[in-house]
Amino acid sequence: MKGSETTLSILVVGSVAIDAIETPFTKLDAIMGGAASYFCASASLYDQVNLVAIVGSDFPQEYMDFLHSRPIDLRGLQIKEGKTFFWRGRYHMDMNMRDTLDTQLGVYADFHPVIPAEYRHSPLVFLANIQPDLQLEVLEQVSGARLTVLDTMELWIMTARPQLTEVIKRVDVLLMSEEEVRQYTEQPSILTGARQLLDMGLQYLVVKQGSYGALLFGADGTYFSAPSYPLAEVSDPTGAGDSFAGGMLGYLSTTEPGANGCYTTDDIKRSIVHGNIIGSFACADFGIGRLRTLTLSEIEQRYKELVKYSHFDPNWVPLHL
Amino acid sequence: MKGSETTLSILVVGSVAIDAIETPFTKLDAIMGGAASYFCASASLYDQVNLVAIVGSDFPQEYMDFLHSRPIDLRGLQIKEGKTFFWRGRYHMDMNMRDTLDTQLGVYADFHPVIPAEYRHSPLVFLANIQPDLQLEVLEQVSGARLTVLDTMELWIMTARPQLTEVIKRVDVLLMSEEEVRQYTEQPSILTGARQLLDMGLQYLVVKQGSYGALLFGADGTYFSAPSYPLAEVSDPTGAGDSFAGGMLGYLSTTEPGANGCYTTDDIKRSIVHGNIIGSFACADFGIGRLRTLTLSEIEQRYKELVKYSHFDPNWVPLHL
Repeated sequence: MKGSETTLSILVVGSVAIDAIETPFTKLDAIMGGAASYFCASASLYDQVNLVAIVGSDFPQEYMDFLHSRPIDLRGLQIKEGKTFFWRGRYHMDMNMRDTLDTQLGVYADFHPVIPAEYRHSPLVFLANIQPDLQLEVLEQVSGARLTVLDTMELWIMTARPQLTEVIKRVDVLLMSEEEVRQYTEQPSILTGARQLLDMGLQYLVVKQGSYGALLFGADGTYFSAPSYPLAEVSDPTGAGDSFAGGMLGYLSTTEPGANGCYTTDDIKRSIVHGNIIGSFACADFGIGRLRTLTLSEIEQRYKELVKYSHFDPNWVPLHL
Repeated sequence: MKGSETTLSILVVGSVAIDAIETPFTKLDAIMGGAASYFCASASLYDQVNLVAIVGSDFPQEYMDFLHSRPIDLRGLQIKEGKTFFWRGRYHMDMNMRDTLDTQLGVYADFHPVIPAEYRHSPLVFLANIQPDLQLEVLEQVSGARLTVLDTMELWIMTARPQLTEVIKRVDVLLMSEEEVRQYTEQPSILTGARQLLDMGLQYLVVKQGSYGALLFGADGTYFSAPSYPLAEVSDPTGAGDSFAGGMLGYLSTTEPGANGCYTTDDIKRSIVHGNIIGSFACADFGIGRLRTLTLSEIEQRYKELVKYSHFDPNWVPLHL
């Protein structure tokens, strides 16, 4: 459908990194990481992605080759003399828990996103998890996006709350984990917290629940509980949220919005299901390992399975009435 | 549908108690409690329930009046000189956490279930959370049930594992929380733990996930993720699991099984949805408060909402293929 079009569809701004990951079973010293990397590996399965990020002169050629192998435009990827952003994390036996052992910003310390002219009218914009100040810089440089989607993390809620608030007020969709919703809104109830966030002007809030799936809240009153794809084993949950976003925006990029320029609620629901599916694949191997080999027909297979796993007879009426 | 039949439909054996409940906002010194009470209050919305339990001579007339007000057969309710089983619990700010402050067994200490002859062929049998030894005594006295359903708790996994194992091997359906599955199977993965439990001879395992809903695993390979009904506030989660069971078996009692005497997978799926709905109502007030006023048309309303909240377009196919 998009094959005949020349629009550059999805803009992502975020980190491209070198990760070191330890789990109770495995230790890897250097694999491709960073929120934007997971997003690109996911969204580029569906459509073209325009990447804005920074890497150092040590960025492995193998990682660059992967980016080149996909429909990912790299005109926005800055390559600077110095070290690539590095993160080392260790997962607990309960894979929902992890400790950051080391973070080295490298060239990322002085990063300011510069959006190439060709990217500035990308209809879908994903602000991956970076400093809210940098996210604001991105929003200043783009215009006319059909949908702007924001991800963030606990660190910014704690250390850059006013700036984060400013970004939330200016985007269409916010992705947050349950814990982040509680932390930001200070509401024990997710439903109450969600209302508070929607009142800031969002069209949609997506609450990521890890292995429990995701919830969608709309300013129009939409509520949708998207089932997670059941996994017997999780190899590495790093990047699952970024991959979720990649699946969500990737799917939307293949969809024409309605005459009013807005996606339908059904489209947004489907996009959340895609998010969960891609997130599930991301967990199946270390880093972007599984996303490298993933195909749309494998995604279609899980989509069909999730229909079977979550739908039930819609027509029950009480027999006693 | 059942109005014209004389079958006594659902047998439940479990505790009827007096509870004292504290939450961060409220303190109640004496309300009707016990697993079998919640189950009866729920299941009797759908059909007749046959109750086997024990209470003391202090059991309030008001509680007895409630039981009499519903289609609950009380021929199996023993009334003994002495104190009714008493439980005092305190919930944390996070309502998923609670401490037991006091437990007084009273007449329950010497309880042995005696199943009246009229109950022994009840097609649906619910073994509410009591000592596995007593659950075995029940199974010795009933025969020809269409479905036997077992609930348990952490205490029995820790203190009566061999007896619990024996009961699991003899029932059709087991209800467990996620934590209980992990504890009993010693598997970090719920999917792996579920397979282990099904291998013990169960037809179905239902994994209760609290505010995240419930999962259904079938020996035939069935997997179903039932959405929870979203609640902005939880007044008192006590008895939510027992009410879940009441909704599940209550619904099934209104359903004719197939020619082979077995419920279809679709029936079982619907019953899980009913379980989640009744569980959500149970949390809306203290004790059985909300279950006293609940109607089938309110249940129908939430059923329709859950369809809207969880179903999505089943027909997505990748456009690039």
